[in-house]
Amino acid sequence: MIVVVKPDASKERRDQLIEWLKGQGLDIHVSEGRFQTVLGLIGDTSQVDMELIESLDIVDSVKRITERFKNSNRKFHPEDTVIDVRGVKIGGGNFCMIAGPCSVETEDQIVAVAKAVKASGADMLRGGAFKPRTSPYDFQGLKGTGIELLKIASEETGLPIVSEIMSFSDLPLFEDVDVLQVGARNMQNFDLLKELGKVNKPILLKRGLANTLNELLMSAEYIMAGGNEQVILCERGIRTFGDYLRNTLDLSAVPMLHELSHLPVIVDPSHATGIARMVPPMALSAAACGADGLIIEVHNDPIHALCDGAQSLTPEDFDLLAEKIRRVREALA
Amino acid sequence: MIVVVKPDASKERRDQLIEWLKGQGLDIHVSEGRFQTVLGLIGDTSQVDMELIESLDIVDSVKRITERFKNSNRKFHPEDTVIDVRGVKIGGGNFCMIAGPCSVETEDQIVAVAKAVKASGADMLRGGAFKPRTSPYDFQGLKGTGIELLKIASEETGLPIVSEIMSFSDLPLFEDVDVLQVGARNMQNFDLLKELGKVNKPILLKRGLANTLNELLMSAEYIMAGGNEQVILCERGIRTFGDYLRNTLDLSAVPMLHELSHLPVIVDPSHATGIARMVPPMALSAAACGADGLIIEVHNDPIHALCDGAQSLTPEDFDLLAEKIRRVREALA
Amino acid sequence: MIVVVKPDASKERRDQLIEWLKGQGLDIHVSEGRFQTVLGLIGDTSQVDMELIESLDIVDSVKRITERFKNSNRKFHPEDTVIDVRGVKIGGGNFCMIAGPCSVETEDQIVAVAKAVKASGADMLRGGAFKPRTSPYDFQGLKGTGIELLKIASEETGLPIVSEIMSFSDLPLFEDVDVLQVGARNMQNFDLLKELGKVNKPILLKRGLANTLNELLMSAEYIMAGGNEQVILCERGIRTFGDYLRNTLDLSAVPMLHELSHLPVIVDPSHATGIARMVPPMALSAAACGADGLIIEVHNDPIHALCDGAQSLTPEDFDLLAEKIRRVREALA
Amino acid sequence: MIVVVKPDASKERRDQLIEWLKGQGLDIHVSEGRFQTVLGLIGDTSQVDMELIESLDIVDSVKRITERFKNSNRKFHPEDTVIDVRGVKIGGGNFCMIAGPCSVETEDQIVAVAKAVKASGADMLRGGAFKPRTSPYDFQGLKGTGIELLKIASEETGLPIVSEIMSFSDLPLFEDVDVLQVGARNMQNFDLLKELGKVNKPILLKRGLANTLNELLMSAEYIMAGGNEQVILCERGIRTFGDYLRNTLDLSAVPMLHELSHLPVIVDPSHATGIARMVPPMALSAAACGADGLIIEVHNDPIHALCDGAQSLTPEDFDLLAEKIRRVREALA
Repeated sequence: MIVVVKPDASKERRDQLIEWLKGQGLDIHVSEGRFQTVLGLIGDTSQVDMELIESLDIVDSVKRITERFKNSNRKFHPEDTVIDVRGVKIGGGNFCMIAGPCSVETEDQIVAVAKAVKASGADMLRGGAFKPRTSPYDFQGLKGTGIELLKIASEETGLPIVSEIMSFSDLPLFEDVDVLQVGARNMQNFDLLKELGKVNKPILLKRGLANTLNELLMSAEYIMAGGNEQVILCERGIRTFGDYLRNTLDLSAVPMLHELSHLPVIVDPSHATGIARMVPPMALSAAACGADGLIIEVHNDPIHALCDGAQSLTPEDFDLLAEKIRRVREALA
Repeated sequence: MIVVVKPDASKERRDQLIEWLKGQGLDIHVSEGRFQTVLGLIGDTSQVDMELIESLDIVDSVKRITERFKNSNRKFHPEDTVIDVRGVKIGGGNFCMIAGPCSVETEDQIVAVAKAVKASGADMLRGGAFKPRTSPYDFQGLKGTGIELLKIASEETGLPIVSEIMSFSDLPLFEDVDVLQVGARNMQNFDLLKELGKVNKPILLKRGLANTLNELLMSAEYIMAGGNEQVILCERGIRTFGDYLRNTLDLSAVPMLHELSHLPVIVDPSHATGIARMVPPMALSAAACGADGLIIEVHNDPIHALCDGAQSLTPEDFDLLAEKIRRVREALA
Repeated sequence: MIVVVKPDASKERRDQLIEWLKGQGLDIHVSEGRFQTVLGLIGDTSQVDMELIESLDIVDSVKRITERFKNSNRKFHPEDTVIDVRGVKIGGGNFCMIAGPCSVETEDQIVAVAKAVKASGADMLRGGAFKPRTSPYDFQGLKGTGIELLKIASEETGLPIVSEIMSFSDLPLFEDVDVLQVGARNMQNFDLLKELGKVNKPILLKRGLANTLNELLMSAEYIMAGGNEQVILCERGIRTFGDYLRNTLDLSAVPMLHELSHLPVIVDPSHATGIARMVPPMALSAAACGADGLIIEVHNDPIHALCDGAQSLTPEDFDLLAEKIRRVREALA
Repeated sequence: MIVVVKPDASKERRDQLIEWLKGQGLDIHVSEGRFQTVLGLIGDTSQVDMELIESLDIVDSVKRITERFKNSNRKFHPEDTVIDVRGVKIGGGNFCMIAGPCSVETEDQIVAVAKAVKASGADMLRGGAFKPRTSPYDFQGLKGTGIELLKIASEETGLPIVSEIMSFSDLPLFEDVDVLQVGARNMQNFDLLKELGKVNKPILLKRGLANTLNELLMSAEYIMAGGNEQVILCERGIRTFGDYLRNTLDLSAVPMLHELSHLPVIVDPSHATGIARMVPPMALSAAACGADGLIIEVHNDPIHALCDGAQSLTPEDFDLLAEKIRRVREALA
């Protein structure tokens, strides 16, 4: 870590800072310049609170040289992590297609979608039982009943299940869910993350709408520090000034996260765009830049398709898309 | 609500949409244009899922005309809400100064700060016992012990207490806390908001870093829909491309929230800027544009001041600032 | 266009607004609701200044239903525009690879790069002669001499040339340049755009760092309204809170622009990412989501490669990438 | 400047980088760590292209320690710059109120507004003759005629004139304009800035919608490097995800620019908010945080007030606001 001290800092205040840093077990290398003094901090700086130092009035700026995320850091773990979900592998060259409806509604619906997406080559079934909604007046999901219906669909097709958990008090209901999803709005719900660190299941961690890659990896660190190293990162769009789609899908996060971390990285083009016809081009882009998988919304019920299918593909659309993705992956193999 | 249908939408699909909307109890007014058809939805559209309609392939765009927030909407409740916290009033012309340290550390610290800020005119004491931190390796707060120390300081000074709650499983510990704060990262932790809707205490709801005013008011709606109408809104900076301060304080949110809602609106310049010397100018700006209060970090311990005081004012700085704020408010009275 | 009038607007003020709108040649359809009045504006609203109306105190909000861009609008021109540059076609299924160095430096350099990229399948040569730089102390380009060197390279290889123009007073120097590029910082330099509307050459118009798609198409409209209909749109990254790459490449703009407009859309992954190793994955993503071409920086000089090649690929990297892009395009054909 | 080299960089490549840096006249201080090597660059690094170095594959990151702006830097020029415009002073404690209509329309209009704002205490008259508009179909200003009308109003009132210049080919028309304004969209029109560096008039430089403070100061540097040191910086709102006002006014830029630079800083609340009723609270906030002035739109014509006055105050509103601003400034004197 490097601390740039302002030119007008008094020697007394500067020495006070150096002593305080030494008190944290660090060696300090001081280099004096004409317009500032630069302190090099040598030792384990992962425990040093950079924001605190940065805001001191004698400090011009601070630069962290070693990242604070350790468990997820590729520097300390060069090989790709491969996560195995009942035989389905994600990461290290294993591409995983997760598909299913936004919300679980009925047994017929979820079983039919599960069969359809399996036939098209999906590896896992997704389905929302607990739904985070901006408005308290919107449908909040079938909750426990939804999980039961997912289990039935899983038994009928053999597909492992991915579903979102919003509160750790619901954990008992998720016993038979294979992968626990943390939604974008909960990416920094640290109490939830800590509890998931004690669980022996893969966690699909979605990036928050305004979170940096460093913050995403620090949230993964909360889970991994608790002992659960099975984290799947997911890019699902960020909030920008853009006004023509719900969010801006940040695909360059995929190669960048692969560089920073050994964890698998998947992409959710359905939530990022919010419009079904934008899902196939963005899904193909994600496959082309090296994502380890996709999570895509698929509905099947022609009667409710009118509105329920807003950002969801039909099974036919999904089948076409899955075939194209296979071709793109083969072309780049 | 207005739905613009694309020019190339088939009559069949359009009629299907109209029927589906009528099925939701709405009257539909159709006006045909040369390049599009516009549907006017008449009735209670607060239950209609705008995003779903917007993403239909036959729909060009949707515009909501009535806001979905009802309980917090000034249209239905023109008078300012005044919240009373043990005699301290916020809103409707009552300016409330909340001050205290970022984290509660020791009895001496919190009692000394409480006495100092009271002497300078603070109306309530803030102090973090549960701390949301980006890194699992950073100090997470004294938790229950911190709350106990806050109570001691409150008893010594008579100041009501504001402290952040991160999980509703901690609610029993907050029995003697006067105002429960929901942090920016938890603004859309809907399970927490629902539980706080059942509590009979004012909730200080901070705006999330990437949340719109509509989303902030919808989160207030989660609390109010549960029966708790005592919500204090708080602007604390948003995330933008700006790189010279931690966040961008969005002060125009203050007059805009006052226009949209009857709830009190306060400002947190300490977290928004992250730098103590930026707090006074931004606090004065907040007072000048009509904020109903401020929440400001103040530390007192000269030994730890070096780093603990990063974004915190000293009691002396706070005293000067409080005096200036009084003068600005008098000038505008 | 739809104008929502506030519930508390006086009848007099409302009628005044209606009269004023009628005075602009529009028919007004008034529908009264319980909480607001909605005015439907029928006629040619492309001349109506939406911002002005929106800011009236009696107006709640305004929604434009017909886009203001006409010449570039797919609604009025359903077929893809195909631009022909000395036999090289862009748009309508014709993929165009533009490659070359960031700056033109020497004859040897530009000729060598031109030959190398041509051998790898590039269709046009890019090279900066006039360079927009944030700092007045950075290299500003070889200017006229640079253009001369580009012409030599073009003559040797037969590749048409693309180069950036920063001021219309430089137009005479660009006589032999085949495609004039407008940089992101000049996307709303309206005086420059107007002049380019009189030129009989294709214009490569880069999206500004903080510009919406609507603004990009309105800038294209400035050129097309002058009579020059040969506009190539280019996505090159937007400015967001993201801090790990120079910009955030907004790839969903590609299918969205194709939906809104008939103009060709290309992608610049070099400037968007600023890091050579991020260019291939983003270039492949762009090809996969349907871009009509790519503009990529390639350098060749091993001695200056150290720094000059920052965001540029080597000819070998480019050759590998070009082959992969062909394979992806074949897979999706 | 500090360059962090990646742990896996070969010694050969690292030495190549060090030699190249030395070739630029710098001394290099190498400090080897366990996970990276840190190079300290000593000497004049203002000419070093940081982006180029940052993008090298062997480089982890780069941190500039000395800012690149020199002429505007407070470090090298600690006293506030005071700009004198025909006796009206800005900066160094001199508060300057600039007011006038968005567009100059008629002699009657501009003279009447000029008299009104002068009576309320305005120090300068603003008025647009050349108007940058997103759409080619919107009113583009009266151009030369507008300037003539401004001159008449200036002669009648004695107020100096501020007006926007969009192209340096229009410079001759601005001979009698006292302050030349560069609009937000032209903040990085470097050719225009260079020409304005040769002019002996104050330049009012507006911050671009997505530009950092560093970029704003580098644009000031373009003007100052040409010899014109009379630059007034202007914050006028930035583009964020915010959707309830046209832009987000970034008021913390005011104290931050004062810290970084000795140049005066004014605020434009009219363009930032786009809504007249939001102008007074934001103007008061700007005065409270130490701005050196305000530029505010005021219209006067009751017949056109309906729409023309969108973001403009009436003379009566302006008079009230001017009085409140005086009171706030006195309260903080």
